Amino acid sequence: MSTKPSKELHPVPNPHPDRDYEVEIRCPEFTALCPVTGQPDFATITVRYVPGPKLIELKSLKLYLWTFREEGHFHEDVTNLILNDLVEALDPRWMEVEGDFNVRGGIYTKVKAEHNPEFRKTRG
Amino acid sequence: MSTKPSKELHPVPNPHPDRDYEVEIRCPEFTALCPVTGQPDFATITVRYVPGPKLIELKSLKLYLWTFREEGHFHEDVTNLILNDLVEALDPRWMEVEGDFNVRGGIYTKVKAEHNPEFRKTRG
Amino acid sequence: MSTKPSKELHPVPNPHPDRDYEVEIRCPEFTALCPVTGQPDFATITVRYVPGPKLIELKSLKLYLWTFREEGHFHEDVTNLILNDLVEALDPRWMEVEGDFNVRGGIYTKVKAEHNPEFRKTRG
Amino acid sequence: MSTKPSKELHPVPNPHPDRDYEVEIRCPEFTALCPVTGQPDFATITVRYVPGPKLIELKSLKLYLWTFREEGHFHEDVTNLILNDLVEALDPRWMEVEGDFNVRGGIYTKVKAEHNPEFRKTRG
Amino acid sequence: MSTKPSKELHPVPNPHPDRDYEVEIRCPEFTALCPVTGQPDFATITVRYVPGPKLIELKSLKLYLWTFREEGHFHEDVTNLILNDLVEALDPRWMEVEGDFNVRGGIYTKVKAEHNPEFRKTRG
Amino acid sequence: MSTKPSKELHPVPNPHPDRDYEVEIRCPEFTALCPVTGQPDFATITVRYVPGPKLIELKSLKLYLWTFREEGHFHEDVTNLILNDLVEALDPRWMEVEGDFNVRGGIYTKVKAEHNPEFRKTRG
Amino acid sequence: MSTKPSKELHPVPNPHPDRDYEVEIRCPEFTALCPVTGQPDFATITVRYVPGPKLIELKSLKLYLWTFREEGHFHEDVTNLILNDLVEALDPRWMEVEGDFNVRGGIYTKVKAEHNPEFRKTRG
Amino acid sequence: MSTKPSKELHPVPNPHPDRDYEVEIRCPEFTALCPVTGQPDFATITVRYVPGPKLIELKSLKLYLWTFREEGHFHEDVTNLILNDLVEALDPRWMEVEGDFNVRGGIYTKVKAEHNPEFRKTRG
Amino acid sequence: MSTKPSKELHPVPNPHPDRDYEVEIRCPEFTALCPVTGQPDFATITVRYVPGPKLIELKSLKLYLWTFREEGHFHEDVTNLILNDLVEALDPRWMEVEGDFNVRGGIYTKVKAEHNPEFRKTRG
Amino acid sequence: MSTKPSKELHPVPNPHPDRDYEVEIRCPEFTALCPVTGQPDFATITVRYVPGPKLIELKSLKLYLWTFREEGHFHEDVTNLILNDLVEALDPRWMEVEGDFNVRGGIYTKVKAEHNPEFRKTRG
Ligand SMILES: [Ca+2]
Ligand SMILES: [Ca+2]
Ligand SMILES: [Ca+2]
Ligand SMILES: [Ca+2]
Ligand SMILES: [Ca+2]
Ligand SMILES: [Ca+2]
Ligand SMILES: [Ca+2]
Ligand SMILES: [Ca+2]
Ligand SMILES: [Ca+2]
Ligand SMILES: [Ca+2]
Ligand SMILES: [Ca+2]
Ligand SMILES: [Ca+2]
Ligand SMILES: [Ca+2]
Ligand SMILES: [Ca+2]
Ligand SMILES: [Ca+2]
Ligand SMILES: [Ca+2]
Repeated sequence: MSTKPSKELHPVPNPHPDRDYEVEIRCPEFTALCPVTGQPDFATITVRYVPGPKLIELKSLKLYLWTFREEGHFHEDVTNLILNDLVEALDPRWMEVEGDFNVRGGIYTKVKAEHNPEFRKTRG
Repeated sequence: MSTKPSKELHPVPNPHPDRDYEVEIRCPEFTALCPVTGQPDFATITVRYVPGPKLIELKSLKLYLWTFREEGHFHEDVTNLILNDLVEALDPRWMEVEGDFNVRGGIYTKVKAEHNPEFRKTRG
Repeated sequence: MSTKPSKELHPVPNPHPDRDYEVEIRCPEFTALCPVTGQPDFATITVRYVPGPKLIELKSLKLYLWTFREEGHFHEDVTNLILNDLVEALDPRWMEVEGDFNVRGGIYTKVKAEHNPEFRKTRG
Repeated sequence: MSTKPSKELHPVPNPHPDRDYEVEIRCPEFTALCPVTGQPDFATITVRYVPGPKLIELKSLKLYLWTFREEGHFHEDVTNLILNDLVEALDPRWMEVEGDFNVRGGIYTKVKAEHNPEFRKTRG
Repeated sequence: MSTKPSKELHPVPNPHPDRDYEVEIRCPEFTALCPVTGQPDFATITVRYVPGPKLIELKSLKLYLWTFREEGHFHEDVTNLILNDLVEALDPRWMEVEGDFNVRGGIYTKVKAEHNPEFRKTRG
Repeated sequence: MSTKPSKELHPVPNPHPDRDYEVEIRCPEFTALCPVTGQPDFATITVRYVPGPKLIELKSLKLYLWTFREEGHFHEDVTNLILNDLVEALDPRWMEVEGDFNVRGGIYTKVKAEHNPEFRKTRG
Repeated sequence: MSTKPSKELHPVPNPHPDRDYEVEIRCPEFTALCPVTGQPDFATITVRYVPGPKLIELKSLKLYLWTFREEGHFHEDVTNLILNDLVEALDPRWMEVEGDFNVRGGIYTKVKAEHNPEFRKTRG
Repeated sequence: MSTKPSKELHPVPNPHPDRDYEVEIRCPEFTALCPVTGQPDFATITVRYVPGPKLIELKSLKLYLWTFREEGHFHEDVTNLILNDLVEALDPRWMEVEGDFNVRGGIYTKVKAEHNPEFRKTRG
Repeated sequence: MSTKPSKELHPVPNPHPDRDYEVEIRCPEFTALCPVTGQPDFATITVRYVPGPKLIELKSLKLYLWTFREEGHFHEDVTNLILNDLVEALDPRWMEVEGDFNVRGGIYTKVKAEHNPEFRKTRG
Repeated sequence: MSTKPSKELHPVPNPHPDRDYEVEIRCPEFTALCPVTGQPDFATITVRYVPGPKLIELKSLKLYLWTFREEGHFHEDVTNLILNDLVEALDPRWMEVEGDFNVRGGIYTKVKAEHNPEFRKTRG
């Protein structure tokens, strides 16, 4: 595997596909650019999911998040985009992505987007 | 956009209108005047919402909250008024505004008002 | 309004009677006497409610709580009595009073009494 | 009342038997002996209950917990035994006893036993 | 009982098999090897369960967790394997194993696997 | 000893008068009246001292602090008065009294007065 | 005394001028305007001093700090100006003013200015 | 070594007697009896020392502290007595014993006694 | 002033050059690249100083720190380089730069470099 | 460099040998064996130093600490041994090693050993 930023995620097989279990992955080192001013933004990205056939591989997730370092994104948009990319790559039974963005102009913003909320409601 | 206090909110389009996701915006720098004594009051205002067609734009929210700096308001009233203004401007699927007011007379007050509680009950 | 202890609460009209919203009022400066030893007891009293036609007025609440300074009360009893008085004065849709009492004999006691629990169950 | 350890609990009448309210009593000074090694064990015992006709009297509870100081008990067993004794003495509508035991062998243990879980489910 | 690492768990009889109660056991001293690099990994393993006929015996649990010290395991896999071993040995009514793994590559991972989720849903 | 408020302190002999050692006594349950408004004030009073011939007796200290419950005092004054009374009664080698007063008008006040600062400087 | 903003401080006599004691006053509700953008700034101002002939009177301090609400000031400047004004009005033996300003542009600033540092060095 | 309470400490040789280094040993499980009421008292005992020829052996320290379980002691006295016993057994270059006692009558007490304060002053 | 990364710092005049006062500036959003792997590193940079003729201007400090985003630096080196640059630009009476770097390989690193330690020793 | 445990430290040159600056390295993942029972012990090892000609290289430090995984050591001894090894390899101007060991038998132990305390005293 390369050590360059890459949008390619390289999931690995889920060793326990017969059980619904939860994984939480917290990445406090996310940075992108503000699409308006071009200045750096910072956030903690947290992914929670119940895996389907595949698991997130941590090194490729790190390289994936690195790709945002030179890209401009709004808070609400980038949180949803990360969810879309992870759902596409992993086909999870349930997934939630939360972005907790650093204060800007005295205001703190968090965004939380969820894939397949029906799974959560049924599972309790 | 001006940098003067203004009741005008300038929402931006929601880039992911097909998904119910949550945004939390915390503003620890709210100040108004006590309508009885005229002295300054301070609070943290937190807005949580599931956007409909529009998103809150942070700079105009900051200018909006600034307008209260010279106005007199009771705690319960101003929390509801902010909710009304934001609902009017954004047409959110669900919204909650919480005001956490600084201690006065040895007493701490929090007020929490909600738009469309049915959405929350259905969503779980 | 006088600045003497008084059992009279002076509620004010609810400016948003059409909405079910929550108010939390925390008073860390409650003191009464132990009915057995006559020595001072201390507690934090927290009131949470969904107002009906009236709101608690903070100054009169402070004078009301002051009246307990020279009275002897058991923990469980005084928490319920405060709830009764506030419900009588305010006719709230829902109310909860919690007393968090300072340690005595190495034991910490909290008491929580609720008016109209059906409202909470329906509201979710 | 004596100031010697005693298994006798001396409940007092509930002054508000017409209302379902909650009492939490936290005792961080519980100590017993390990039934295997005979060495002292330490725990915080927390009792939460909705009283029926009677309330726990704090001084007799303290003398009751003192009786375990020279007795050998396993963690899971003693938590259930305390629940049994308190239910027998108080006839509560609902009760939960939690033992949070100090670390032993690098492992932290908590035990939580409940009387009448149906009450909790109905009450919400 | 030996004081060597051993996969053998030695449960003890449940002294209160007639009641559904919860036990939580937290072990902050878990270490295994990374199956890719061979370097040490560290985690806190927490077991929560409602016992059936048997209880976990703490010393044998400690020796059991010690066996992983020289073994290579992925985070998601080892959490599920520990759950499988404990369920096999104890036949609990409900069990949950959570692994909270130390940061690697700037990323924090938690895994939580559950046995018999139906029990939890029914119990509330 | 009575259980009424009393300015009389009843020190006990210091069992280790040959050693300079420190005692810290923290009393979070101090209340007096505001000399301007007559309304209750609250504070935590902390006494730190190196005893001379006598030690503070805790029960009489409690009755002593109780005497302020119905007296009006300014923050700076009452902290110094308590120091004066304790120095008079105990003849300590060194003593410090700190009053940490509850917020009033959005302002938090602490006062710290010291007896025999030369002792502290020499002792290091 | 008026309840309008006023640069006039109204010190009161020090009731214990014969002793060097310390007073700390913390004001978390300071707000001024940014002299560049005109937008509101927020800070906690803490005053620590050893009084000379006079004490700060809390209500006039509150009115004094209120005067900055409509004034533009840089962080370093306003902290020193407040120190100058308080030293002028109180003639303290020692004083320190600290401004802890809210984050701007992702950067947190604190400023601490001291009057008569020689006093502190001598006193230890 | 026995596993019964014993006043005998069994120090072990200091493997690095040529260096002044510090050891801190914190024991949150100390309990004795109140010499007035006979009821249990609880404390955290912390020992800090620079060893001379010998080190504290942890198991014998545990058995030593266990001996206080059935003895009556005042807070100030027992802290000094433990220091005396440890100094006698270990001949340390410097030692400090701190007792942090649980709240009694709403008052928290800490006692700290030191052996050879000259060592600390010279060492800096 | 540009909004591009720039090594140029634009200090402003110190409005109180006659007084030795302290400024602390904390920047939790520092990121550079690892000079070995090329992957992103993250740190909090804190600058504490006693200004001479000039003050740090916050916007230009932000642009200055931004320049490290694409540069490779070792932890110890970059902390000293930032100190050198700030001393060169500001000619402070005293300055300290601290870098608190995010965990790598399970190890947390902090580096603290100081300009003119003699000033600190004299000032006390 | 190998990725096997190794007592060989591979320091790198200090890029700023002309300045006395401090480095703190915290390693929460230290584990060794108890020399009495053979069971695993756990600790956080913190190294603080003022470098001379060389800096600690983090990867080789990690491999060095890994060598203790299968070795038996007493707490006081291993802390001093690590200090000796690091001083031998790095020739620092000043160094301190602190071991904060996990609780055993209800007792928490910390050990702190220092190289060249004269440097600290002179530097202030
Ligand atoms: Ca944040
Ligand atoms: Ca779930
Ligand atoms: Ca508040
Ligand atoms: Ca309490
Ligand atoms: Ca509710
Ligand atoms: Ca515990
Ligand atoms: Ca973790
Ligand atoms: Ca459960
Ligand atoms: Ca306070
Ligand atoms: Ca701040
Ligand atoms: Ca001082
Ligand atoms: Ca304590
Ligand atoms: Ca020392
Ligand atoms: Ca860090
Ligand atoms: Ca300084
Ligand atoms: Ca520890």
